[in-house]
Amino acid sequence: MQNTYFQRLESLETGQTVPFSEMAKQLVFNAQGLIPVITQEAKSGQVLMMAWMNSEALMKTLETRKVTYWSRSRNQLWIKGETSGHHQRLVNLRIDCDGDTLLCLVEQTGPACHTKRKSCFYFQATAEQAVVIDV
Amino acid sequence: MQNTYFQRLESLETGQTVPFSEMAKQLVFNAQGLIPVITQEAKSGQVLMMAWMNSEALMKTLETRKVTYWSRSRNQLWIKGETSGHHQRLVNLRIDCDGDTLLCLVEQTGPACHTKRKSCFYFQATAEQAVVIDV
Repeated sequence: MQNTYFQRLESLETGQTVPFSEMAKQLVFNAQGLIPVITQEAKSGQVLMMAWMNSEALMKTLETRKVTYWSRSRNQLWIKGETSGHHQRLVNLRIDCDGDTLLCLVEQTGPACHTKRKSCFYFQATAEQAVVIDV
Repeated sequence: MQNTYFQRLESLETGQTVPFSEMAKQLVFNAQGLIPVITQEAKSGQVLMMAWMNSEALMKTLETRKVTYWSRSRNQLWIKGETSGHHQRLVNLRIDCDGDTLLCLVEQTGPACHTKRKSCFYFQATAEQAVVIDV
């Protein structure tokens, strides 16, 4: 996954900046125009879910601070919580070293998971079994 | 992303188990046979990186407790740290509600990122700019 734009940025020091309009064009979207997004609760550090954004969802998330994904099942923009009330307010958006994954730090209202659990990651596995844990 | 196997498991209560051999067959691998993996430092909660596993990498990770990915650039199994020494010892492996994402909680030796930063997520973005942060 070579990305010469992000390779050039590796030597930047803490505090240095680049225009986001420039970086946004270099993000690695897949063949469906989507980039994976990890969503983590800012205050606890708990990983809540993984979903996808297209570039429109990303810009809406940054502009509105309401985390907005692309729903692959409904094939439309998905403002998290617009039907459930379980919103995610964006605290910080981070991008990884090769520009192919986003990390949203959020304030989560209510559970993040559609099963009403706080986090989607509620199975814990060994080679023998998966157990439902309290998350 | 309907998955009837995981839909049936939604009603399980905390502490209930299923055989992992059964669940492993129902995980959602993409067209390349890969599933996304979020890796988080167990003790700090810091998200370190996102990478991919195929089913062989997943089983090796569970059996050896050395986190093992599939390298998409090298097209081979990638035992994290085998060349850099920056190993990840698996503490817990979790699976999400619809079986299409894994979360590895690890003990990280040294930095997780190839740039020698602890985490890969070292850009923090607003609609205006991305700044390099100390992670």
